[in-house]
Amino acid sequence: MASQKTIALDAMGGDHGPEVLVPGAALSLERQPALNFIFFGQKSRIETVLAQHPALAARSRIVHTDHLIAMDEKPSQALRHGKGSSMWLSLEAVKSGQADAAVSAGNTGALMAIAKLVLRPIAGIERPAIAALWPTIKSESIVLDVGANIGATAAQLTGYALMGAAMARAVFHIERPSVGLMNVGTEEMKGNEEVKAAHALLKSAEALPLDYKGFIEGDQIGQGAVDVVVVEGFAGNIALKTAEGTARQIGAYLKAAMASSLMSKLGALFAQGGFRVLKEKMDPRRVNGGTFLGLNGIAVKSHGGTDAFGFASAVDLAYEMADSGLIARLTADIDGFHHRLSAASGGGIPPERSAGGALGKV
Amino acid sequence: MASQKTIALDAMGGDHGPEVLVPGAALSLERQPALNFIFFGQKSRIETVLAQHPALAARSRIVHTDHLIAMDEKPSQALRHGKGSSMWLSLEAVKSGQADAAVSAGNTGALMAIAKLVLRPIAGIERPAIAALWPTIKSESIVLDVGANIGATAAQLTGYALMGAAMARAVFHIERPSVGLMNVGTEEMKGNEEVKAAHALLKSAEALPLDYKGFIEGDQIGQGAVDVVVVEGFAGNIALKTAEGTARQIGAYLKAAMASSLMSKLGALFAQGGFRVLKEKMDPRRVNGGTFLGLNGIAVKSHGGTDAFGFASAVDLAYEMADSGLIARLTADIDGFHHRLSAASGGGIPPERSAGGALGKV
Repeated sequence: MASQKTIALDAMGGDHGPEVLVPGAALSLERQPALNFIFFGQKSRIETVLAQHPALAARSRIVHTDHLIAMDEKPSQALRHGKGSSMWLSLEAVKSGQADAAVSAGNTGALMAIAKLVLRPIAGIERPAIAALWPTIKSESIVLDVGANIGATAAQLTGYALMGAAMARAVFHIERPSVGLMNVGTEEMKGNEEVKAAHALLKSAEALPLDYKGFIEGDQIGQGAVDVVVVEGFAGNIALKTAEGTARQIGAYLKAAMASSLMSKLGALFAQGGFRVLKEKMDPRRVNGGTFLGLNGIAVKSHGGTDAFGFASAVDLAYEMADSGLIARLTADIDGFHHRLSAASGGGIPPERSAGGALGKV
Repeated sequence: MASQKTIALDAMGGDHGPEVLVPGAALSLERQPALNFIFFGQKSRIETVLAQHPALAARSRIVHTDHLIAMDEKPSQALRHGKGSSMWLSLEAVKSGQADAAVSAGNTGALMAIAKLVLRPIAGIERPAIAALWPTIKSESIVLDVGANIGATAAQLTGYALMGAAMARAVFHIERPSVGLMNVGTEEMKGNEEVKAAHALLKSAEALPLDYKGFIEGDQIGQGAVDVVVVEGFAGNIALKTAEGTARQIGAYLKAAMASSLMSKLGALFAQGGFRVLKEKMDPRRVNGGTFLGLNGIAVKSHGGTDAFGFASAVDLAYEMADSGLIARLTADIDGFHHRLSAASGGGIPPERSAGGALGKV
């Protein structure tokens, strides 16, 4: 039942370029045989790597460009000078319908800025967000925003909830995903004003296509307490990075602990199968790929420094999102939400919080 | 060289009361023989437990009260009705000079509110913060604010830097602690306006009693990149909880991995010494105790659900801070900082950001 999907791939993005990204695409193709690729970048470099992957080469075409966006370029610079770059062209391919999703390991800020300009936000969405797949004890959750925006109004947080739920339906195939709002306490007295107002809005809005579970705290993400975690971008980015850092820290502790005596070393040798299971569980490459949600098109951001295995995960994610009809469904959800809100006579968000277009903008 | 110090102990706070807190005090006394205690709470309950700890009993007195603040009481309620409670009395003992520090495992919000009222902020500090000791690969760092305040201006973030540095001098005995400002990226273009302004202020202020290292990201905390991490309270609390959750999550993975085959089980048996080392490293009780910084007195908050071992860590921390002359040094630092800022003709913070008293308030 898998339908043919085409990925527009920014072959020059990231720390390594086509030498890593093309083998990553080949790996993903093995898992998703209905994939096709358009590679944007330096033709000769891409061809050299493609020659070693004949199955991929048969389903790919290359669009040459020498123009690329540097990893340290500011978003404003990238917007001014980025036209015709491998990143820009891959997003335009999604816009024009030549591709179903774009994947880039390039400069996050630039990708966000260009994606917003080229793909445009969905009607009713003021601020697209970056969603991350977060491994949990149960399986995976979606956490957003992990850094697209700094600060979020109540209406924007509510928009994140709808976007995250739409992604959970697409990627986890859950019809009514559970959603939690990240806060500093589970009591209603805590939290900032925007978080409180978003809480009131999500509680009061009936018949949302999601199951709102109220506030959650940082320690519940990894427990898989909800399918979707909504958080303002500054705190969300810090949480994501802190979790990555903590995982690395514990990995270092574990290594030192196993080397602490001859018996431990021997034990670690016996237990190497178990350690392999653990390593796989903790492998950050397994869930590589932040998604820009809220745009009229799918754009996935891979870690810049990842290897082929990690990049393949980002391509997998793009495929899954394209295959699930995410955008159409999300557009309908946002539309329906606003209709319901208007019908409910606009209660919920105090007027000063919904500046810039009544409740029409989240 | 250790001098006699007296701890005012809220014996009724936390989930367990004197049955856990008194044995915790006894444990800390074994390590810090110069400690004395005043226990505030229900005399008969405290006496029963003290009877099993004669060495502690010899260095303790009890101040009876039946009044206690519930764990779910709102800070505003606690302020209205809390007078005469075990928590309030222990803070008053610090205020009056009968004790050198107060320790409570009770309601955080109530403790913060009452401590602010009873002990009063140090001149020049508008907002006290909660500092946490954060275990790192190298040793430990201080992270603040982890939840005393939601939102922070540039001037308040700068105040956190000074307070954190003063605590690092007291607890880590480092004369010029390194300080990082938590942000969503290491490039100057990122971050919110307050963080950027605090960055400019910390960079420009000369001769600060700290070594300002610029921006750091969440994944660098656990690496021990700096001695002191400064962050706004909402994001800081989420980071702390997320790290705790991630550690628990990986613990669960590890357990499952070691049970995944007979060989792993056998290996884990051999490696149990190593696992013990790991468990100790990851034991959250080792660094139990958030400190309220910026008040004219020392108040340490223990986790409410901790056991005697964990509570003893909080008492240790209170002792160390009292013994180091933290408050006098911090008061001098804040004063000196403001003088230097005034001398530098008030550059750095735009006027609208230092509302409420020129630069006199951080």
